[in-house]
Amino acid sequence: MSKVFANIALSLDGYMAPEGMAIEHWETPGYKDWGAKWGALMNWLLSQKYFRENLMFGPGGETGPVNDMVRSTMERSGANIMGKRMFEQGERSWPEEAPFHTPVFVLTHEARDPWVRPGGTTFFFVNDGPESALEQARKAAGNRDVRISGGASVIQQYLNLGVIEELEIALAPVMFGAGRRLFENLHEPLPKFRIDQVHAGASATHLRYVRA
Amino acid sequence: MSKVFANIALSLDGYMAPEGMAIEHWETPGYKDWGAKWGALMNWLLSQKYFRENLMFGPGGETGPVNDMVRSTMERSGANIMGKRMFEQGERSWPEEAPFHTPVFVLTHEARDPWVRPGGTTFFFVNDGPESALEQARKAAGNRDVRISGGASVIQQYLNLGVIEELEIALAPVMFGAGRRLFENLHEPLPKFRIDQVHAGASATHLRYVRA
Repeated sequence: MSKVFANIALSLDGYMAPEGMAIEHWETPGYKDWGAKWGALMNWLLSQKYFRENLMFGPGGETGPVNDMVRSTMERSGANIMGKRMFEQGERSWPEEAPFHTPVFVLTHEARDPWVRPGGTTFFFVNDGPESALEQARKAAGNRDVRISGGASVIQQYLNLGVIEELEIALAPVMFGAGRRLFENLHEPLPKFRIDQVHAGASATHLRYVRA
Repeated sequence: MSKVFANIALSLDGYMAPEGMAIEHWETPGYKDWGAKWGALMNWLLSQKYFRENLMFGPGGETGPVNDMVRSTMERSGANIMGKRMFEQGERSWPEEAPFHTPVFVLTHEARDPWVRPGGTTFFFVNDGPESALEQARKAAGNRDVRISGGASVIQQYLNLGVIEELEIALAPVMFGAGRRLFENLHEPLPKFRIDQVHAGASATHLRYVRA
Protein backbone atom coordinates (compact mmCIF):
# COMPACT_ATOMS: atom_id res chain seq x y z
CA MET A 1 0.00 0.00 0.00
CA SER A 2 1.22 3.44 -0.79
CA LYS A 3 2.69 5.61 1.96
CA VAL A 4 1.79 9.17 2.80
CA PHE A 5 4.76 11.47 3.23
CA ALA A 6 5.83 15.08 3.33
CA ASN A 7 9.20 16.34 2.15
CA ILE A 8 9.83 20.00 2.78
CA ALA A 9 12.50 22.60 3.42
CA LEU A 10 12.45 24.36 6.76
CA SER A 11 14.32 27.36 8.08
CA LEU A 12 16.31 26.86 11.28
CA ASP A 13 13.66 28.84 13.11
CA GLY A 14 10.87 26.65 11.82
CA TYR A 15 9.33 28.46 8.87
CA MET A 16 8.37 27.02 5.50
CA ALA A 17 7.97 30.42 3.90
CA PRO A 18 9.26 33.86 4.90
CA GLU A 19 6.99 36.74 5.70
CA GLY A 20 6.11 38.69 2.58
CA MET A 21 6.24 35.70 0.21
CA ALA A 22 2.79 36.02 -1.28
CA ILE A 23 1.42 36.60 -4.74
CA GLU A 24 0.87 40.29 -4.11
CA HIS A 25 4.61 40.74 -3.53
CA TRP A 26 5.70 38.26 -6.19
CA GLU A 27 7.27 40.95 -8.34
CA THR A 28 9.16 42.54 -5.47
CA PRO A 29 11.64 40.08 -4.01
CA GLY A 30 13.14 42.97 -2.03
CA TYR A 31 9.91 43.17 -0.03
CA LYS A 32 10.78 42.08 3.51
CA ASP A 33 13.78 40.42 1.91
CA TRP A 34 11.63 37.39 1.13
CA GLY A 35 13.45 36.55 -2.08
CA ALA A 36 16.86 36.30 -0.44
CA LYS A 37 15.43 34.31 2.44
CA TRP A 38 13.65 31.89 0.14
CA GLY A 39 16.83 31.50 -1.87
CA ALA A 40 18.82 30.71 1.29
CA LEU A 41 16.21 28.13 2.28
CA MET A 42 16.30 26.45 -1.13
CA ASN A 43 19.98 26.80 -1.85
CA TRP A 44 20.65 23.10 -1.21
CA LEU A 45 17.96 22.16 -3.77
CA LEU A 46 18.54 24.72 -6.50
CA SER A 47 22.01 23.33 -7.11
CA GLN A 48 20.93 19.72 -7.65
CA LYS A 49 21.11 18.32 -11.17
CA TYR A 50 17.79 16.45 -11.00
CA PHE A 51 15.92 19.49 -9.73
CA ARG A 52 17.46 21.77 -12.35
CA GLU A 53 16.40 19.41 -15.11
CA ASN A 54 12.89 19.05 -13.74
CA LEU A 55 12.36 22.80 -13.42
CA MET A 56 14.10 23.35 -16.77
CA PHE A 57 16.75 25.55 -15.23
CA GLY A 58 19.25 24.14 -17.69
CA PRO A 59 22.06 21.58 -17.62
CA GLY A 60 24.65 21.06 -14.90
CA GLY A 61 24.26 20.76 -11.18
CA GLU A 62 25.41 18.54 -8.39
CA THR A 63 25.12 14.79 -8.35
CA GLY A 64 25.53 12.74 -5.20
CA PRO A 65 23.45 11.68 -2.23
CA VAL A 66 21.28 14.82 -2.10
CA ASN A 67 20.56 14.63 -5.81
CA ASP A 68 19.65 10.97 -5.32
CA MET A 69 17.23 11.96 -2.55
CA VAL A 70 15.59 14.56 -4.77
CA ARG A 71 15.18 12.04 -7.57
CA SER A 72 13.86 9.40 -5.21
CA THR A 73 11.28 11.82 -3.78
CA MET A 74 9.99 12.52 -7.29
CA GLU A 75 10.05 8.93 -8.45
CA ARG A 76 8.22 7.53 -5.43
CA SER A 77 5.40 10.08 -5.74
CA GLY A 78 2.32 8.79 -7.51
CA ALA A 79 0.13 11.72 -6.49
CA ASN A 80 0.53 15.10 -4.81
CA ILE A 81 -1.76 17.07 -2.52
CA MET A 82 -1.33 20.79 -2.10
CA GLY A 83 -3.10 23.87 -0.83
CA LYS A 84 -4.69 26.61 -2.84
CA ARG A 85 -1.98 29.15 -2.06
CA MET A 86 0.85 26.87 -3.15
CA PHE A 87 -1.04 26.07 -6.32
CA GLU A 88 -1.69 29.72 -7.11
CA GLN A 89 1.94 30.65 -6.64
CA GLY A 90 3.04 27.70 -8.76
CA GLU A 91 0.46 28.38 -11.46
CA ARG A 92 2.35 31.59 -12.14
CA SER A 93 5.86 30.24 -11.86
CA TRP A 94 6.07 26.59 -12.92
CA PRO A 95 7.08 25.85 -16.48
CA GLU A 96 4.25 24.73 -18.79
CA GLU A 97 5.37 21.19 -18.08
CA ALA A 98 4.58 21.47 -14.38
CA PRO A 99 7.19 19.67 -12.23
CA PHE A 100 5.01 16.93 -10.71
CA HIS A 101 4.26 14.44 -13.51
CA THR A 102 1.44 12.97 -11.42
CA PRO A 103 -2.15 13.82 -10.58
CA VAL A 104 -2.15 16.75 -8.14
CA PHE A 105 -5.08 17.29 -5.79
CA VAL A 106 -5.55 20.93 -4.85
CA LEU A 107 -7.53 21.68 -1.68
CA THR A 108 -9.68 24.67 -2.50
CA HIS A 109 -13.18 26.06 -2.25
CA GLU A 110 -13.05 26.96 -5.91
CA ALA A 111 -14.95 24.69 -8.33
CA ARG A 112 -12.81 24.21 -11.40
CA ASP A 113 -12.38 21.59 -14.09
CA PRO A 114 -9.22 19.49 -14.05
CA TRP A 115 -6.28 21.29 -15.59
CA VAL A 116 -4.13 19.05 -17.75
CA ARG A 117 -0.50 20.02 -18.30
CA PRO A 118 1.95 18.42 -20.72
CA GLY A 119 4.30 15.92 -19.09
CA GLY A 120 1.78 14.02 -17.00
CA THR A 121 0.66 16.57 -14.43
CA THR A 122 -3.10 17.06 -14.04
CA PHE A 123 -4.47 19.32 -11.34
CA PHE A 124 -7.76 18.24 -9.75
CA PHE A 125 -9.59 20.75 -7.58
CA VAL A 126 -11.04 19.15 -4.46
CA ASN A 127 -13.80 20.98 -2.61
CA ASP A 128 -14.76 18.43 0.02
CA GLY A 129 -11.81 18.43 2.36
CA PRO A 130 -8.46 16.79 3.08
CA GLU A 131 -9.78 13.28 3.74
CA SER A 132 -11.49 13.16 0.37
CA ALA A 133 -8.36 14.50 -1.33
CA LEU A 134 -6.29 11.80 0.35
CA GLU A 135 -8.67 9.08 -0.74
CA GLN A 136 -8.53 10.30 -4.33
CA ALA A 137 -4.75 10.66 -4.17
CA ARG A 138 -4.31 7.12 -2.83
CA LYS A 139 -6.34 5.75 -5.72
CA ALA A 140 -4.44 7.80 -8.24
CA ALA A 141 -1.03 6.89 -6.81
CA GLY A 142 -1.42 3.14 -7.37
CA ASN A 143 1.66 1.44 -5.97
CA ARG A 144 3.51 4.68 -5.57
CA ASP A 145 3.29 7.06 -2.61
CA VAL A 146 1.22 10.14 -1.85
CA ARG A 147 3.15 13.31 -1.22
CA ILE A 148 1.64 16.06 0.90
CA SER A 149 3.42 18.87 -0.91
CA GLY A 150 2.42 21.85 1.23
CA GLY A 151 2.04 24.55 2.23
CA ALA A 152 2.31 24.60 5.97
CA SER A 153 -1.40 24.62 6.75
CA VAL A 154 -2.04 21.62 4.52
CA ILE A 155 0.73 19.63 6.19
CA GLN A 156 -0.71 20.64 9.58
CA GLN A 157 -4.12 19.31 8.57
CA TYR A 158 -2.64 15.95 7.61
CA LEU A 159 -0.45 15.80 10.72
CA ASN A 160 -3.60 16.36 12.76
CA LEU A 161 -5.32 13.56 10.85
CA GLY A 162 -2.42 11.31 11.88
CA VAL A 163 -1.88 10.02 8.36
CA ILE A 164 1.64 11.26 7.63
CA GLU A 165 3.88 8.22 7.87
CA GLU A 166 7.15 9.81 6.82
CA LEU A 167 8.24 13.35 7.46
CA GLU A 168 11.34 14.51 5.62
CA ILE A 169 12.80 17.89 6.48
CA ALA A 170 15.70 19.70 4.85
CA LEU A 171 16.70 22.01 7.70
CA ALA A 172 18.55 25.01 6.26
CA PRO A 173 20.74 27.26 8.43
CA VAL A 174 18.77 30.42 7.75
CA MET A 175 16.57 32.44 10.07
CA PHE A 176 13.34 33.97 8.75
CA GLY A 177 12.15 35.69 11.93
CA ALA A 178 8.55 35.56 10.69
CA GLY A 179 6.49 33.76 8.09
CA ARG A 180 4.55 30.52 7.85
CA ARG A 181 5.55 28.06 10.51
CA LEU A 182 5.40 24.36 9.78
CA PHE A 183 4.66 23.22 13.33
CA GLU A 184 1.66 25.18 14.48
CA ASN A 185 -2.02 24.48 15.09
CA LEU A 186 -1.28 20.89 16.04
CA HIS A 187 -3.60 19.30 18.55
CA GLU A 188 -3.68 16.31 20.86
CA PRO A 189 -3.14 13.50 20.28
CA LEU A 190 0.04 14.90 18.74
CA PRO A 191 1.70 12.93 15.96
CA LYS A 192 4.52 10.68 17.11
CA PHE A 193 7.67 10.18 15.10
CA ARG A 194 11.01 8.51 15.54
CA ILE A 195 14.30 9.36 13.87
CA ASP A 196 14.90 7.22 10.81
CA GLN A 197 17.81 8.82 8.96
CA VAL A 198 20.02 11.88 9.04
CA HIS A 199 22.12 13.09 6.15
CA ALA A 200 24.49 15.96 6.87
CA GLY A 201 24.56 18.04 3.70
CA ALA A 202 26.71 21.12 3.27
CA SER A 203 23.83 23.59 3.00
CA ALA A 204 21.02 21.70 4.75
CA THR A 205 20.62 18.87 7.22
CA HIS A 206 18.31 16.20 5.86
CA LEU A 207 16.19 14.74 8.63
CA ARG A 208 13.92 11.79 8.04
CA TYR A 209 11.30 10.76 10.59
CA VAL A 210 8.87 7.89 10.43
CA ARG A 211 5.63 7.54 12.35
CA ALA A 212 6.23 5.84 15.69
CA MET B 1 39.04 35.07 24.10
CA SER B 2 36.17 33.06 25.43
CA LYS B 3 33.26 32.17 23.17
CA VAL B 4 29.58 32.64 23.85
CA PHE B 5 27.46 29.62 23.15
CA ALA B 6 24.11 28.01 23.80
CA ASN B 7 23.53 24.28 24.04
CA ILE B 8 19.93 23.26 24.43
CA ALA B 9 17.42 20.51 23.72
CA LEU B 10 14.59 21.29 21.35
CA SER B 11 11.43 19.44 20.45
CA LEU B 12 10.89 18.66 16.78
CA ASP B 13 8.23 21.37 16.71
CA GLY B 14 10.59 23.95 18.15
CA TYR B 15 9.86 24.14 21.87
CA MET B 16 12.34 24.25 24.71
CA ALA B 17 9.69 23.53 27.34
CA PRO B 18 6.21 22.04 27.07
CA GLU B 19 3.10 23.92 28.08
CA GLY B 20 2.35 23.44 31.75
CA MET B 21 5.96 23.08 32.86
CA ALA B 22 6.01 25.79 35.49
CA ILE B 23 6.61 25.86 39.21
CA GLU B 24 2.92 25.96 40.01
CA HIS B 25 2.49 22.55 38.31
CA TRP B 26 5.81 21.13 39.49
CA GLU B 27 4.13 18.53 41.69
CA THR B 28 1.74 17.38 38.98
CA PRO B 29 3.68 15.93 36.05
CA GLY B 30 0.37 14.67 34.67
CA TYR B 31 -0.70 18.26 34.10
CA LYS B 32 -0.89 18.77 30.33
CA ASP B 33 1.39 15.74 30.17
CA TRP B 34 4.38 18.04 30.68
CA GLY B 35 6.42 15.48 32.61
CA ALA B 36 6.24 12.85 29.88
CA LYS B 37 7.00 15.44 27.21
CA TRP B 38 9.97 16.80 29.11
CA GLY B 39 11.23 13.27 29.63
CA ALA B 40 10.96 12.53 25.91
CA LEU B 41 12.88 15.73 25.14
CA MET B 42 15.64 14.88 27.60
CA ASN B 43 15.78 11.15 27.04
CA TRP B 44 19.05 11.39 25.10
CA LEU B 45 20.68 13.25 28.01
CA LEU B 46 19.29 11.41 31.01
CA SER B 47 20.98 8.22 29.89
CA GLN B 48 24.50 9.70 29.62
CA LYS B 49 27.05 8.69 32.23
CA TYR B 50 28.55 12.15 32.65
CA PHE B 51 25.16 13.76 33.14
CA ARG B 52 24.05 11.11 35.63
CA GLU B 53 27.16 11.66 37.71
CA ASN B 54 26.82 15.43 37.60
CA LEU B 55 23.16 15.36 38.68
CA MET B 56 23.95 12.61 41.20
CA PHE B 57 21.50 10.21 39.59
CA GLY B 58 23.82 7.37 40.45
CA PRO B 59 26.33 5.22 38.58
CA GLY B 60 26.00 3.74 35.13
CA GLY B 61 24.95 5.31 31.88
CA GLU B 62 26.10 5.50 28.31
CA THR B 63 29.57 6.44 27.21
CA GLY B 64 30.40 7.37 23.65
CA PRO B 65 30.22 10.43 21.43
CA VAL B 66 27.12 11.94 23.05
CA ASN B 67 28.58 11.50 26.53
CA ASP B 68 31.77 13.15 25.27
CA MET B 69 29.73 16.10 23.99
CA VAL B 70 27.99 16.48 27.33
CA ARG B 71 31.31 16.43 29.16
CA SER B 72 32.88 18.87 26.72
CA THR B 73 29.96 21.30 27.13
CA MET B 74 30.46 21.26 30.88
CA GLU B 75 34.23 21.47 30.77
CA ARG B 76 34.36 24.37 28.32
CA SER B 77 31.95 26.47 30.39
CA GLY B 78 33.61 29.02 32.64
CA ALA B 79 30.39 30.87 33.41
CA ASN B 80 26.66 30.42 32.85
CA ILE B 81 23.89 32.93 32.27
CA MET B 82 20.28 32.03 32.90
CA GLY B 83 16.86 33.55 33.36
CA LYS B 84 14.93 33.91 36.55
CA ARG B 85 12.43 31.18 35.69
CA MET B 86 15.10 28.60 34.94
CA PHE B 87 16.85 29.51 38.18
CA GLU B 88 13.69 29.25 40.23
CA GLN B 89 12.86 25.84 38.83
CA GLY B 90 16.43 24.68 39.40
CA GLU B 91 16.60 26.11 42.90
CA ARG B 92 13.94 23.59 43.84
CA SER B 93 15.30 20.62 41.93
CA TRP B 94 19.10 20.74 41.64
CA PRO B 95 21.10 18.80 44.20
CA GLU B 96 22.80 20.92 46.87
CA GLU B 97 25.93 20.70 44.75
CA ALA B 98 24.32 22.56 41.83
CA PRO B 99 25.38 21.11 38.48
CA PHE B 100 27.28 24.09 37.05
CA HIS B 101 30.56 24.36 39.01
CA THR B 102 31.04 27.90 37.70
CA PRO B 103 29.74 31.36 38.48
CA VAL B 104 26.14 31.61 37.25
CA PHE B 105 24.64 34.98 36.40
CA VAL B 106 20.88 35.08 36.85
CA LEU B 107 18.95 37.78 34.99
CA THR B 108 16.34 39.03 37.40
CA HIS B 109 14.74 42.12 38.85
CA GLU B 110 15.20 40.71 42.32
CA ALA B 111 18.07 42.10 44.40
CA ARG B 112 19.71 39.24 46.22
CA ASP B 113 23.13 38.46 47.62
CA PRO B 114 25.25 35.89 45.82
CA TRP B 115 24.29 32.34 46.70
CA VAL B 116 27.28 30.05 47.15
CA ARG B 117 26.77 26.34 46.65
CA PRO B 118 29.23 23.57 47.41
CA GLY B 119 31.14 22.33 44.37
CA GLY B 120 32.03 25.67 42.83
CA THR B 121 28.68 27.06 41.77
CA THR B 122 27.87 30.61 42.89
CA PHE B 123 24.73 32.34 41.70
CA PHE B 124 24.99 36.09 41.12
CA PHE B 125 21.79 38.04 40.64
CA VAL B 126 22.10 40.63 37.89
CA ASN B 127 19.59 43.46 37.81
CA ASP B 128 20.98 45.64 35.03
CA GLY B 129 20.32 43.61 31.93
CA PRO B 130 21.80 40.99 29.60
CA GLU B 131 24.77 43.03 28.39
CA SER B 132 25.96 43.60 31.92
CA ALA B 133 25.49 39.92 32.73
CA LEU B 134 27.53 38.97 29.68
CA GLU B 135 30.33 41.34 30.63
CA GLN B 136 30.46 39.86 34.11
CA ALA B 137 30.28 36.33 32.76
CA ARG B 138 33.14 36.95 30.33
CA LYS B 139 35.33 38.19 33.16
CA ALA B 140 34.41 35.26 35.36
CA ALA B 141 34.95 32.69 32.60
CA GLY B 142 38.61 33.53 32.07
CA ASN B 143 39.89 31.39 29.21
CA ARG B 144 36.82 29.23 29.22
CA ASP B 145 33.54 29.94 27.43
CA VAL B 146 30.29 31.56 28.44
CA ARG B 147 27.21 29.42 28.21
CA ILE B 148 23.82 31.01 27.72
CA SER B 149 21.93 28.29 29.57
CA GLY B 150 18.34 29.36 28.98
CA GLY B 151 15.43 29.57 29.05
CA ALA B 152 14.08 30.47 25.68
CA SER B 153 13.58 34.17 26.32
CA VAL B 154 17.15 34.61 27.57
CA ILE B 155 18.56 32.88 24.50
CA GLN B 156 16.34 35.10 22.34
CA GLN B 157 17.75 38.20 24.02
CA TYR B 158 21.31 37.11 23.29
CA LEU B 159 20.47 36.06 19.73
CA ASN B 160 19.06 39.54 19.21
CA LEU B 161 22.25 41.04 20.63
CA GLY B 162 24.14 39.05 17.99
CA VAL B 163 26.63 37.67 20.49
CA ILE B 164 25.92 33.94 20.29
CA GLU B 165 28.81 32.44 18.35
CA GLU B 166 27.87 28.79 18.62
CA LEU B 167 24.41 27.34 18.77
CA GLU B 168 24.14 23.68 19.66
CA ILE B 169 20.76 22.00 19.45
CA ALA B 170 19.81 18.48 20.43
CA LEU B 171 16.71 18.01 18.29
CA ALA B 172 14.52 15.33 19.83
CA PRO B 173 11.77 13.56 17.86
CA VAL B 174 8.95 14.64 20.14
CA MET B 175 6.11 17.07 19.50
CA PHE B 176 4.97 19.41 22.27
CA GLY B 177 2.18 21.22 20.43
CA ALA B 178 2.53 24.20 22.75
CA GLY B 179 5.03 25.63 25.20
CA ARG B 180 8.02 27.95 25.10
CA ARG B 181 9.44 28.26 21.63
CA LEU B 182 13.14 28.81 21.17
CA PHE B 183 12.92 30.82 17.94
CA GLU B 184 10.51 33.63 18.60
CA ASN B 185 10.74 37.38 19.14
CA LEU B 186 13.80 37.61 16.91
CA HIS B 187 14.27 40.83 15.03
CA GLU B 188 16.25 42.16 12.08
CA PRO B 189 19.11 41.96 11.54
CA LEU B 190 18.52 38.27 12.20
CA PRO B 191 21.43 36.19 13.46
CA LYS B 192 23.29 34.30 10.75
CA PHE B 193 24.64 30.82 11.26
CA ARG B 194 26.24 28.13 9.16
CA ILE B 195 26.20 24.39 9.74
CA ASP B 196 29.30 23.25 11.55
CA GLN B 197 28.64 19.67 12.65
CA VAL B 198 25.88 17.10 12.77
CA HIS B 199 25.89 14.02 14.95
CA ALA B 200 23.07 11.55 14.38
CA GLY B 201 22.27 10.14 17.79
CA ALA B 202 19.67 7.46 18.38
CA SER B 203 17.28 9.62 20.41
CA ALA B 204 18.28 13.13 19.26
CA THR B 205 20.03 14.77 16.34
CA HIS B 206 22.87 16.95 17.52
CA LEU B 207 23.13 20.05 15.37
CA ARG B 208 25.99 22.49 15.78
CA TYR B 209 25.87 25.91 14.12
CA VAL B 210 28.49 28.65 14.22
CA ARG B 211 27.95 32.32 13.57
CA ALA B 212 28.41 33.10 9.88
